[in-house]
Amino acid sequence: MKKPEPINPTDDEARALAKNIMDVARHGALAVTRKDGVPYVARVAVLADQGNLLTLISTLSAHTTALRSTPSCAILIGEPGPKGDPLTHPRMTLTCTAEVVEKAHYKSRWLASIPKAQLYYDFTDFLMFRLVPSEIRLNGGFGKAFQLAPSDLT
Amino acid sequence: MKKPEPINPTDDEARALAKNIMDVARHGALAVTRKDGVPYVARVAVLADQGNLLTLISTLSAHTTALRSTPSCAILIGEPGPKGDPLTHPRMTLTCTAEVVEKAHYKSRWLASIPKAQLYYDFTDFLMFRLVPSEIRLNGGFGKAFQLAPSDLT
Repeated sequence: MKKPEPINPTDDEARALAKNIMDVARHGALAVTRKDGVPYVARVAVLADQGNLLTLISTLSAHTTALRSTPSCAILIGEPGPKGDPLTHPRMTLTCTAEVVEKAHYKSRWLASIPKAQLYYDFTDFLMFRLVPSEIRLNGGFGKAFQLAPSDLT
Repeated sequence: MKKPEPINPTDDEARALAKNIMDVARHGALAVTRKDGVPYVARVAVLADQGNLLTLISTLSAHTTALRSTPSCAILIGEPGPKGDPLTHPRMTLTCTAEVVEKAHYKSRWLASIPKAQLYYDFTDFLMFRLVPSEIRLNGGFGKAFQLAPSDLT
């Protein structure tokens, strides 16, 4: 029996869906590799920035420690709403490289989108990382899988 | 400056919260390591089973391929509701080892909790994995981090 081809050709509808998931995402599940090689995953706050994702995370957390030693990571965004089947809700996984950026530069944008962060934004143990995607897997629901390029997000 | 100790001693309240997150979880973010060593994360359906998590996933997916070659994984459960701050919503990360189990054995329980799965439960490309936790990090909100043992979940 022939396996179905699970990846559809990328079209404008897929690009628009992916961009929308990026734009509305305020948190995601960040997967990292710990120093001992074991995977770890944590919820993090995110904000889209020109085809990348920004995330503000504490150096006290296990995922930040992992990211500083291994910048290769992946993030799942596209949160299901309160109704409907969470497994058919559109989401995407971005395989990324993380790099520390200048936190002060993003302060006004970040606080405009995530106002509660003003309580801890300036804490010295919080770092801002930019997650730069290399591979993007979009799952728009059953039979709607796409493999996008970073240029599809800008 | 002394860093704050981010882990609280485990108490009955923490155990009850962790068990509740397990019991109500119907999906989570599964982090795996691909053959090329790169992390990957995907949304999967889950169901608690005696301190472990069951997940039904397709062999056509990137995460199943990864899991079959590297059974070490991590899963984030505890989905934020439609209101409130998603970053203060209780969630936990379980570092696990995945093992394939007999799918037929769990069919009635799985379909009772996730009825829509009857559309694909018996597809031969769907496998049931048991995720057996070794480390459990519970984040019950700001300042409420706990490190639980597998025995705290049963």
